[in-house]
Amino acid sequence: MTQLTPDAEPPLRRGRGRRPAGQVRAEILNAAGNLLLAEGMTGFTIEKVAAHAGASRMTIYKWWPSKGALALDGYFTVVAPALAFPDTGDIVADLTSQLVSFVHLLTDTSAGRVVSQLIAQSQTDPDLATAFRERYSGPRRAISVEALNKAVARGQLRADIDPESVIDQLWGACYHRLLIPDQPLTEEFVVTLVDNLIRGLR
Amino acid sequence: MTQLTPDAEPPLRRGRGRRPAGQVRAEILNAAGNLLLAEGMTGFTIEKVAAHAGASRMTIYKWWPSKGALALDGYFTVVAPALAFPDTGDIVADLTSQLVSFVHLLTDTSAGRVVSQLIAQSQTDPDLATAFRERYSGPRRAISVEALNKAVARGQLRADIDPESVIDQLWGACYHRLLIPDQPLTEEFVVTLVDNLIRGLR
Repeated sequence: MTQLTPDAEPPLRRGRGRRPAGQVRAEILNAAGNLLLAEGMTGFTIEKVAAHAGASRMTIYKWWPSKGALALDGYFTVVAPALAFPDTGDIVADLTSQLVSFVHLLTDTSAGRVVSQLIAQSQTDPDLATAFRERYSGPRRAISVEALNKAVARGQLRADIDPESVIDQLWGACYHRLLIPDQPLTEEFVVTLVDNLIRGLR
Repeated sequence: MTQLTPDAEPPLRRGRGRRPAGQVRAEILNAAGNLLLAEGMTGFTIEKVAAHAGASRMTIYKWWPSKGALALDGYFTVVAPALAFPDTGDIVADLTSQLVSFVHLLTDTSAGRVVSQLIAQSQTDPDLATAFRERYSGPRRAISVEALNKAVARGQLRADIDPESVIDQLWGACYHRLLIPDQPLTEEFVVTLVDNLIRGLR
């Protein structure tokens, strides 16, 4: 166990020297995200994150108001590279590519189990629900809305679309299959989701 | 409290006589669904359902393998009238009407809280997850698939659509807003969902 200190600043660590605050913050976020993916919310504690990041609990509490807030910021940080939104100028290709990566993250890594348990726990834990929306789903929505708005500006989508509803019909449809697995969550499925919406069913 | 009996058959009840099995079954399902809506899964017990329905626990166990199975069959029974699928011959009108009723059920009654907690609990309770899929979401999917296939047969939707994916993009999109309420679950939202899919975004 790394020793936890009651100091407001992270301790001087032998052989490393004092790290800049930005680096400490980044290491805490990575430690939090990786701990969450490894152990789920059940095994997630501020103490373990502090130990893995070589930071003090006081530092963590200075930056994050709760365990849930830290967990969600950490989750956003570690999944962000896998969920990067390509911008090739072709909205159909970009949506499909991003959704395929999203589905692989959910089905090939522990992220699917972890996020489904975060959503589950959010139904009875209002603080976790707020952290989920403010630190994960809200910011992820904003990224997708921006990509859709760019496609509107390029004339690839109608000017009168409601981007928020499109998010529920693409990523929301995937969460639906993750949480209620009546039907499989596959690459073929996301290709169909995009095709249904772009071409229309008529 | 109604007296519980260990008999395999429901007791003769003063003034009512022995009820036909079909009636007993219907009364158990209604009692189960109403108890679930009133108290959620936390307050749901076989004992209470037996008492409300005036049936024995043995009768219930003869027909349902678990508490979850009874709860989900009861839920399906009591919400079915509100979720009836109209068949006017106009798929856009029928989908919109059914989805508006679905959203009102979720937002104006306790069904929204109850179903979100059932989905939540299913993430860590495999038996409940199976009961949910086999006794609620699977049968509800079948009803919607049938309505979509009829619309294909009438030439209102393309012959090559995948009805299962449409379900995720309509009802799944609503569950997404129920479970992760970044954006409101309204009549306007479902009208937009149907319009996005039918017309397409391009």
